Amino acid sequence: MKAAVVKITGKVFSPEGRERLPGVVSELKQALKEGYRLAIVVGGGPIARQYQELGKRLRLNNAVLDLLGIEVTRLNAALVATAIGWEASLPVPRSFEEIVRWWARGSVVVTGGLQPGQSTNAVAAEIAELVGAEVLVNATNVDGVYDKDPTTNPDARLLKRLTIDDLERILAEAPAVPGRYDLMDPVALKIVKRSRLRVAFVNAFRPGSIIAAIHGDTSVGSWLVWE
Amino acid sequence: MKAAVVKITGKVFSPEGRERLPGVVSELKQALKEGYRLAIVVGGGPIARQYQELGKRLRLNNAVLDLLGIEVTRLNAALVATAIGWEASLPVPRSFEEIVRWWARGSVVVTGGLQPGQSTNAVAAEIAELVGAEVLVNATNVDGVYDKDPTTNPDARLLKRLTIDDLERILAEAPAVPGRYDLMDPVALKIVKRSRLRVAFVNAFRPGSIIAAIHGDTSVGSWLVWE
Amino acid sequence: MKAAVVKITGKVFSPEGRERLPGVVSELKQALKEGYRLAIVVGGGPIARQYQELGKRLRLNNAVLDLLGIEVTRLNAALVATAIGWEASLPVPRSFEEIVRWWARGSVVVTGGLQPGQSTNAVAAEIAELVGAEVLVNATNVDGVYDKDPTTNPDARLLKRLTIDDLERILAEAPAVPGRYDLMDPVALKIVKRSRLRVAFVNAFRPGSIIAAIHGDTSVGSWLVWE
Amino acid sequence: MKAAVVKITGKVFSPEGRERLPGVVSELKQALKEGYRLAIVVGGGPIARQYQELGKRLRLNNAVLDLLGIEVTRLNAALVATAIGWEASLPVPRSFEEIVRWWARGSVVVTGGLQPGQSTNAVAAEIAELVGAEVLVNATNVDGVYDKDPTTNPDARLLKRLTIDDLERILAEAPAVPGRYDLMDPVALKIVKRSRLRVAFVNAFRPGSIIAAIHGDTSVGSWLVWE
Amino acid sequence: MKAAVVKITGKVFSPEGRERLPGVVSELKQALKEGYRLAIVVGGGPIARQYQELGKRLRLNNAVLDLLGIEVTRLNAALVATAIGWEASLPVPRSFEEIVRWWARGSVVVTGGLQPGQSTNAVAAEIAELVGAEVLVNATNVDGVYDKDPTTNPDARLLKRLTIDDLERILAEAPAVPGRYDLMDPVALKIVKRSRLRVAFVNAFRPGSIIAAIHGDTSVGSWLVWE
Amino acid sequence: MKAAVVKITGKVFSPEGRERLPGVVSELKQALKEGYRLAIVVGGGPIARQYQELGKRLRLNNAVLDLLGIEVTRLNAALVATAIGWEASLPVPRSFEEIVRWWARGSVVVTGGLQPGQSTNAVAAEIAELVGAEVLVNATNVDGVYDKDPTTNPDARLLKRLTIDDLERILAEAPAVPGRYDLMDPVALKIVKRSRLRVAFVNAFRPGSIIAAIHGDTSVGSWLVWE
Repeated sequence: MKAAVVKITGKVFSPEGRERLPGVVSELKQALKEGYRLAIVVGGGPIARQYQELGKRLRLNNAVLDLLGIEVTRLNAALVATAIGWEASLPVPRSFEEIVRWWARGSVVVTGGLQPGQSTNAVAAEIAELVGAEVLVNATNVDGVYDKDPTTNPDARLLKRLTIDDLERILAEAPAVPGRYDLMDPVALKIVKRSRLRVAFVNAFRPGSIIAAIHGDTSVGSWLVWE
Repeated sequence: MKAAVVKITGKVFSPEGRERLPGVVSELKQALKEGYRLAIVVGGGPIARQYQELGKRLRLNNAVLDLLGIEVTRLNAALVATAIGWEASLPVPRSFEEIVRWWARGSVVVTGGLQPGQSTNAVAAEIAELVGAEVLVNATNVDGVYDKDPTTNPDARLLKRLTIDDLERILAEAPAVPGRYDLMDPVALKIVKRSRLRVAFVNAFRPGSIIAAIHGDTSVGSWLVWE
Repeated sequence: MKAAVVKITGKVFSPEGRERLPGVVSELKQALKEGYRLAIVVGGGPIARQYQELGKRLRLNNAVLDLLGIEVTRLNAALVATAIGWEASLPVPRSFEEIVRWWARGSVVVTGGLQPGQSTNAVAAEIAELVGAEVLVNATNVDGVYDKDPTTNPDARLLKRLTIDDLERILAEAPAVPGRYDLMDPVALKIVKRSRLRVAFVNAFRPGSIIAAIHGDTSVGSWLVWE
Repeated sequence: MKAAVVKITGKVFSPEGRERLPGVVSELKQALKEGYRLAIVVGGGPIARQYQELGKRLRLNNAVLDLLGIEVTRLNAALVATAIGWEASLPVPRSFEEIVRWWARGSVVVTGGLQPGQSTNAVAAEIAELVGAEVLVNATNVDGVYDKDPTTNPDARLLKRLTIDDLERILAEAPAVPGRYDLMDPVALKIVKRSRLRVAFVNAFRPGSIIAAIHGDTSVGSWLVWE
Repeated sequence: MKAAVVKITGKVFSPEGRERLPGVVSELKQALKEGYRLAIVVGGGPIARQYQELGKRLRLNNAVLDLLGIEVTRLNAALVATAIGWEASLPVPRSFEEIVRWWARGSVVVTGGLQPGQSTNAVAAEIAELVGAEVLVNATNVDGVYDKDPTTNPDARLLKRLTIDDLERILAEAPAVPGRYDLMDPVALKIVKRSRLRVAFVNAFRPGSIIAAIHGDTSVGSWLVWE
Repeated sequence: MKAAVVKITGKVFSPEGRERLPGVVSELKQALKEGYRLAIVVGGGPIARQYQELGKRLRLNNAVLDLLGIEVTRLNAALVATAIGWEASLPVPRSFEEIVRWWARGSVVVTGGLQPGQSTNAVAAEIAELVGAEVLVNATNVDGVYDKDPTTNPDARLLKRLTIDDLERILAEAPAVPGRYDLMDPVALKIVKRSRLRVAFVNAFRPGSIIAAIHGDTSVGSWLVWE
């Protein structure tokens, strides 16, 4: 049975993004119906930032703000998990150990963040390595990886294929751009590199992209290739 | 040492209400500083309704919608707990048994809902009975209990004192008004009655009301009295 | 696969009642063999009252007495669960979250009470709503719902069919009769009503009644009907 | 601070024995007030046997019957723990690891059995060794250790002092007498021996014996001495 | 489906013994492939003794030294469990209750010790009794049970068959020999006796012995027989 | 009360290093006696590598090898925790959430690794940020941070003070040197940077260095300074 790990941006839970949510869930259910095993890692999005704002007003430190954001990723994960149904991991796993346990018993793992200082991308990469996933799908709100930041450079070019060296260079060039953080953090990068994971970067808001990436259809998004 | 249980409406976590949040937290911290033991039960408010809307769109059943709302009450509780600091119960307790454990070890219990079909008021009453609280403070967005629904009746009169018979009559008259649900559900009513708990209904948005109620100052809000 | 929730009175664990226990277990096993998914909620009965007596002598409060009674329901549930075998949830779930987890992994849920102030009927209704049960079977020590209290009125008439209005009226008329408490508490009533659950009230001591109710055979006991 | 471990026979929870229960609890509370740290291990008694009878009728195997008996010891422990109050370990610890945790955080450990094939005496000895208890008090329904079985030999003589060799010989002579099982099982014996624990055997039904043994008063019961 | 419990000596994890480890794992996997249900209990071996040495230098008591040894058995169990794969119980169960849970859900139980004063043999016997295992395989570093200690008596004779009386006598004669401790402790003996378990003693270092014993092939090792 | 987080290299648990272990424990106990609050994070060392070797022979993947290493860090942590005594967190916390809980209740946190792809340095930095530690002490087997790798460059110079830019440059220059991994991984670096943590790098094998660093004595080791 083929396994895939899908990281979904928290933006699909925002007031603007949520029209897309039922579509995302449908694609995931479709993949399950086709017999794929899935682990789904969900981001926090605007609600996370909203709670972190409240936290800042209450003068909480960075670690605690991260933990609040993580609680929102779990809330989002709970919504996705209940939409998927009894096969999904509920209550949402709160540690790597619980993730292992749910996967071992054959469930669809649906989870959020785990620790301060680490993105949900890292969690997704850790799971992909552990379960030997065919593909790690990173579904954000852009069409893939660009040679420059697409939000500020109108002439940014989408890279259909990229090597680990390309990826490292792009990440190194734009480390401080918060939007890039979504792409891949250093822990994720390290794991992808050491275990040569196959990664697809697709747009969660473009219907059909997630299921296509799970199918291994390299015509959508950007794909990290290993020679 | 005097113990108090405070139920806080989820409305203080809404975009409109949250200006008030630091003030609410300050009053709770003040009570702790004065030596009170506290259990704090937090509602879900508009974010809960927002996630339940998403859930309805995904065609989830009533029990699951309640569970989603409960997850939001826990998120709100996590925010309050981190603002209170290391004395507070974190991660937020997810069962009555965990609540008992945190209280037993001397922590400030901060919690949300527990089960479908039951309000956070019921949770608050259960804790108040268990720990023998001096007072159960129900902090909503109105000044107390009225003889008629104050949101639709301009001539509604605030009852400074009320007996359990008054309360039962008022609840029976307006069972279907969602706003009344916040006041007290049947489980809460039953517990309050069988153990003759002292209850204060105050306005969370009126600075000083919560700490006053904890102090037992009967000049604020409405008080349930036992002869 | 059809799902049913069965609430079993604690009286089948009493010295007088327990001759019936193997028969009750057989009917439940029969239903499992026929392919039904079951959740079984077990009451406390005389042993619960016995421990609550001890508790009163030790001057424990109402919440703690309820918790002691809940521990006995769990003991009774453990007995039923071990009799059913490896498919059953053991150790007995101690929170709603644990119940969800066991059900999700395909187990036969066997549980007792969960919180002070709430009956095992409420727990049964909450599970029935969550899992979308075909029927909620309430197996007590009388043949169903009567128009008057059958233990004191020799002319009480069994209602083969009743509407939610009938049920509410009967419960409202006899709220203080402890024996009635077994029928349905306010939380259970609220859930049954909002999700229009199908409920059968049967006699646990009449062989064949429980399996008949699971089969949907409306010739036994009383049935709550929705037009 | 002095630590003591007290094993209490389940017979004080039987219909005949329970008049004595408040007295036993008082002595334990007295010791706590005097500043002793306590771990209390509670037996199952007649209720345990009653449930095991039910289990036999349901054709359960020996391990499961032991587990049912253990559930009753936990129920009894819950009663004692709630009577002691917030300092006590609740919910009752269900593994050795949980016992360690409760002790570490300064609680009064109140527990029952843990595993099939092992008596509550073994649990008590394990705790006594772990925490370095001053004394392990074994409170049964006889006045101490006799040279012969006192229930069948009217001329049995109480041994005020006994060595480990005496104890081993007495246990070896009467291994098959169920009543002797209460005295000390092989695990308990091994631990007592390897760590040279000080043990007092007293009568739980003789008021003042338990507190006297905690005080180290060797005029009550039988004492295991090390030269 | 046939169930077997296999106790594996910790010596296969020692620097000298570990050449044999992949072979042991292969035999266990072979049995799983053939459709057997397995519970595997792993000893501590030389690493356990190494940590206990460190513990002694830090002046820890006997109970704590046992607990350190138990942690090493869990580490060894984690290695075996990960080698077996997703069917195995991970994280390693830390209480009897967790063992029950893993078995109930159909996993391969892989575990170590549980409590001070009790050997991993006792754990294995408890599981064998609980699950009604066809055979309890005790895989040590000698070929079976001898009439005298084979390490000191060159003329010791291997007993291909032995009765419970033989076993008790042999254990009684050499209770203080540490090497014998591996054979069976008093708790294990008691359980084996009361439930008349079938036990095979084989050499873990002799390829094919473990799978042969699981198959019930009485030509390898020593077998405890019941008439 | 001043809080410090101390990361201890796993090398003090190796056969060569362990002579130093009692000394390390003494310095930690000394700090506790002086009133410091401590969190102690323990590495895996040679035993971890030994188990990972076994794992490789069993063909386990990178994530699983990391998890095996983490189990050894927990074993080492258990040894340190038991040596410290009842104030320490036992059983060793296995998730960030458990770490939070132990700290909140006033315990000395003693822990190991948590997740694949992340070093124990990252765990130490996360805790230091969360609890607002005065200092994060990184106790390795060299005297501090050098301008070049000291194990291969005899002329490497110890940096008594270094800025975050120095540290980043040194880490960037030698990313692939396994020995450097011990210094600080990217997650640790990110947290140290964003919350401007004070870090001391000292030699665990030089008696007095750990306690000196806790005291804030900048004459030992290398100190990360913020202007």
